[in-house]
Formats: sequence, structure tokens, C-alpha cells
Amino acid sequence: MAYLQINSQHFFSNYHQIAQFIGQENIHKIAIVLKDNAYGHGLKEMAQLAKEAKITTCFVKNTKEALEIAAMFRHITILYPQSLEDKEALQQCLKQDNIYFCVASLEALKLYPKQTKIELEINSGMNRNGIQAQQLQEAFEIINKRELELIGVFSHNGFGDDFGSEFYTQNNEFLMVKKKVLELCNQYSFKKPRFHFFSSSGALRAVRYNESLPLELQDDLFRIGIAFYGYLCQDIRFCGLNVKPIASLWARKISTYFLKKGSRIGYGGVSETKEDTLVSSYDVGYGDGLFRLREGMELKTKEGFKIYPRSSMDCLSIQGDREELCIIEDANPWAEAFGTIPYEILVHLQPTIPKKIV
Amino acid sequence: MAYLQINSQHFFSNYHQIAQFIGQENIHKIAIVLKDNAYGHGLKEMAQLAKEAKITTCFVKNTKEALEIAAMFRHITILYPQSLEDKEALQQCLKQDNIYFCVASLEALKLYPKQTKIELEINSGMNRNGIQAQQLQEAFEIINKRELELIGVFSHNGFGDDFGSEFYTQNNEFLMVKKKVLELCNQYSFKKPRFHFFSSSGALRAVRYNESLPLELQDDLFRIGIAFYGYLCQDIRFCGLNVKPIASLWARKISTYFLKKGSRIGYGGVSETKEDTLVSSYDVGYGDGLFRLREGMELKTKEGFKIYPRSSMDCLSIQGDREELCIIEDANPWAEAFGTIPYEILVHLQPTIPKKIV
Repeated sequence: MAYLQINSQHFFSNYHQIAQFIGQENIHKIAIVLKDNAYGHGLKEMAQLAKEAKITTCFVKNTKEALEIAAMFRHITILYPQSLEDKEALQQCLKQDNIYFCVASLEALKLYPKQTKIELEINSGMNRNGIQAQQLQEAFEIINKRELELIGVFSHNGFGDDFGSEFYTQNNEFLMVKKKVLELCNQYSFKKPRFHFFSSSGALRAVRYNESLPLELQDDLFRIGIAFYGYLCQDIRFCGLNVKPIASLWARKISTYFLKKGSRIGYGGVSETKEDTLVSSYDVGYGDGLFRLREGMELKTKEGFKIYPRSSMDCLSIQGDREELCIIEDANPWAEAFGTIPYEILVHLQPTIPKKIV
Repeated sequence: MAYLQINSQHFFSNYHQIAQFIGQENIHKIAIVLKDNAYGHGLKEMAQLAKEAKITTCFVKNTKEALEIAAMFRHITILYPQSLEDKEALQQCLKQDNIYFCVASLEALKLYPKQTKIELEINSGMNRNGIQAQQLQEAFEIINKRELELIGVFSHNGFGDDFGSEFYTQNNEFLMVKKKVLELCNQYSFKKPRFHFFSSSGALRAVRYNESLPLELQDDLFRIGIAFYGYLCQDIRFCGLNVKPIASLWARKISTYFLKKGSRIGYGGVSETKEDTLVSSYDVGYGDGLFRLREGMELKTKEGFKIYPRSSMDCLSIQGDREELCIIEDANPWAEAFGTIPYEILVHLQPTIPKKIV
């Protein structure tokens, strides 16, 4: 059986390191991003670990995800509440006191009933989601008129992973937004909402900057995703954090062959054995969301055994005959082979893969 | 809301064309491959359409998939029965008269209780799964001793997609296997099992060859997967079949901006607008199993709107401001952009994406 092993020690160690880096005085600001089935790690499993770490705030993708873990957190924000047309799930979420809805446009603001708890998303330069800073006044007007409850105002720094001045330009952009929000809160007699802007890389880069701001302009939360799962982008590795991947993918042997030198393996017979060798098939393939190895790709298991391209939909051919192998211990070599980032390698893993917490 | 639209007319038209090509006299030989959530299309939805088309035989990945559609087919084969360690699902499957278990090694043969209905998988040259032809005698010995019921003997032609002599070498290999199996059935007084070897491309290439064989050596089934879903590999397009993709991926607008020429979009701001333009975000991303667009990739929606790299986990930025867009109508351009095959583009789509049959 293929399965995803979740290493709880690595999770707690990652948490501890992040907490140390951002400082004990900021520990309450750590929120965990659990969206997209916790980046493929298993929503419930990761929620459980986060709860054990006493994390009280999380971010999920949609109403279904929110309901699955509704009892486990004090604050749950749905980042894409419109992404499911499940009316029943929506109604249930609206009844929950601890579930908040992100709103990314003025039109969306008008969709919610009275007293809905919302977090207003602001575009601070990614030009992706959120209202424009110039629309803040209008947004407050609608919130006030429709009697919505403004829980948070946030944006997303899309430059945290890349060195460059844009990171700081965006910081300034959001700082202006916060100032404007405080003015408007004053004007409309709203309680100050919580502010949040940074995800993993940004938070690690900007924690001191944040502390240098006047208290009321500081961010109240850091939305930590990938760092919890054990990855940091290249540009942020300077911070010295030694986070470790918490998920490893395992598979079990189906069939074994002793193959003579020159034997061909798999679809189109594109792999050829370079010597007499044992080759076995293992029960995970691209149908499980693993990326599909093609001609010329050189990836190995944790144990050092060659994986022969092309991958099949439900199995891989690998050197040797061990009963069980660790296919992925670290998503980085896979990300490099496929010209992508570890996030994609992990999040594509299908939710049907069983999870085992160790 | 992002969703996968399943075009039932395309499905029935694909079925009709396949049936015409392989001949009305062979129509009962058509089996549908529904494994891996029906290649990402939705297991239940596709099972329903297959049932409407009066297809009685299907292939699934594991015990859970078999149970989900147990009431809908006369013959259900589990291709990877060991791929889940779900003991309860296994017990339920063992009780069902219409569920069969693929067995790919002599060791696996020994795992099943008396009277289990099995299909024996033979390695005919892919060196991937299945027992060796030389192990047939031993396999029959075990089957006999353990009182298993031999429903089928099958293999997989892994060269159907590629022109070359290997396709025919494998055919001959399996022909020898069938002859040997008939001898052994005689020897052990077993009923002749059903034979099957070809998936979509192979079946289309080999239907006449199959008919040229003596009746008892002909294949009894063709396992049709990708052709049903509307795709054929390059080398098989000669057959003149005009199958059409049945799935299209749709997404809905989140936010819209009017951006000046030279504005930057998304992570790292890698996309830059070449003119003053409207740009909107849509609610599907690589967290939904869609492949992640990176720098330099040029993909468009069905409507012809540019998708701006880099993709986000939960959204895409696209030219224009339509309420809803068709992100994928045909997986081929996506497969080409990512150096892969349409199968992978489709099967990576997460089962959480809602399906709409039209």
C-alpha cells in the first residue's frame, strides 16, 4: 500500500524553529495555512498536529474544509468561500462563530447576510485577488450598511520568495492600507480588525520590520504554510532555519523480476537495464498525483534506488526488490526535475492516499 | 466555483465510434477503465454514463473504488487490490460475486481465501507487473490447491502507443501465454478464463489481428480507457476515429483589475501587461491538481484569453473580465506545455472538484 507518512516530530521541530525565529513574544501571531488538504498532507491530520501545538488560528480553502475542522480552532478563515457552490456547507459555516469569510471584491461583499464575519482582502501589488486600496472607503460603506462584522484586513505579499525591492514596495503599500483602515474604523466606529500580510518567507524576512512599526500598525498574524511542512524557498534559506519535510511518500512492492542487461522496462520500453539486475514495481503512480517520470529523468528513492521512466498511472518500476520503499523524502529533487516548486509536488498528491502519523 | 463539466454527448459519441471501429460483433468485448477516479473525471459520474451505454465490465484501481460502483456493473476487476490496507473494504469486496482481484505475483496468489475470484496478470514484456509465463504451471498449482476461481488471464501491451515491432512481439508473447493457459485449464479441469490484453490504442490497432485468431485464442475483452475520455495517442490517430474530450474545466471570477501597460501580475510579478488591459483572477489553481504555469508558458482559455504565469495554488490570473471561463477544453495543449500526456493532466485533477454532467 502506498501511503504518506507524516512525521510529527519534524512538525513540532519546525514549529519550534519558526517560533524561536519570530520570537516568543510573537508566538500568538503564528497561524497555520491548512488549505488544499493541508498542501496535500491531509487536512485532518495536520489540523490535529496544529491543535497539539496549541495553534488557534488557521486558513482553509473552502467551506467544506472549514467544516471538517470547525471544532479544532478558535479562528478559521475561508480563503476562497465562493469556490464551492455547496449551499448547505455555506449555511453551516455562516452559523459558526469561529469561521470567517474572505472577501476579494466589492461585489462579493454584497453576497453575505447581516453579521457575517468577514476578512477583507486588499490588492497590494500582485494584481491577483482583493479590492483596491482606493475602494476601501466604499467597502467600509457596504460593510456598515449591510452590518457585516469586519474581523480582518489582509493582503498577500507575492514577492516574499524573490529577492528584490518589490517586497518592500508591497510592504509600504500594505502599511498605507493599514493606516487608511484605522482612519475608517475611527470614522465608522468599527473595532480595529486584525491585520495580516506575510506568509512563510515574508514573515521570516519581515518580523523585525513588523516590530519596528507602531503597535496599532503591526501585523497581528503570520500565515505560515510551507515552512510548517518543512520547506523554504531558496532566497530565504539565509535565515538559518533548519526546517525538515514532514511528509514522506512510501510504496509497496507488487512484482519482481530478475532482468538481464539490456532488458527494457515500462511503457515504450524506454528504460533499459545497464547490467543484470532485479527490478520491481511499486504501487504508486501518476494517478496518485505523483509527477510522471519521463525519458531521461533521473530520480532515486530515499534508499538510493533508481526509478525507471516512464512512470505508469498506478505504479513505478524501481531497481531492487525491497518490500517497501520511500519514494519521496524531500520534494526538492522532484520539484527540480519537473521545473516546479515543492508546493506543487506535494499538493498534487491525491487525498485518497492514506496518511500515517508517526 | 471551479468545476469539471462532463459532456455526456461526447461520451456516447466516443463509445459509438469505438464500437463501430471494432465492429458490432465485438461490442460485448468493450470494457471501460474507471480506475483513478475515472482518470480524474469522477468515478461515479463516469460509471453512470457507462451504465447508460450498457457497458457491463469495468476496471478500477482499488477496493474502495470497486465498492463505490459495486451495484452498477456485472463484472468489476480491481487492478491494484493490495494498494489499500483497508481490511473492511477488502472483506466487503470478497463477499461480492461481481468483484474480481488482479494477482500480479505468486506470493499475492497465496493471500486470498478459498473461492476468491481472481484475474491472473502476466508479464508479456513490459517487465512491470505480473507473473512470468514460465510461472504459469506453478500459478495453476496454487490456484488449484487454494481453490481460487480463475476468472481471467491478462497482460498489458505497453507498446500500443508507439510504432515499432515490440507491439507485435508482445502480441506473440501473449498468444503463447494463452495457448499455455488453455493446456493448463485442460490439465486442471478449469473453465477457460477470459483473456484480455489491449487498452485503447492496442485494441484499435489489433482488432483485426484478434479476429484472425482461432476463437478460443481470441481476446474476450478490450480495456478501453483514454479513448472513452476523448483522447488518442499520436501514433493511433491514423484510425480515423474522431473522439472528443468529454471533460472541460471551468472557473469563476474572483477579482478584476484594470491594469496599465507594464503592470506586473502574480508571484514574483513575472507577467507584465503589454497594453492597458483588464485582468481577472479565477478560482482554480495548482492546488486543484491543475498544472502550474511558470514563466514563459503560453496557454489560453477556450475563449482565447491569455493565462498569466505564475499560477497560484488556488487561482489563475487571466486576461479580461468574464464571469466564467473554460480553462481546459482539450488537455493536449496543456500536456504539450508540460512535456507530458493528457492522461496526467486529467488524472491529477483533484476529486474534490465538483462534476457537472451536461
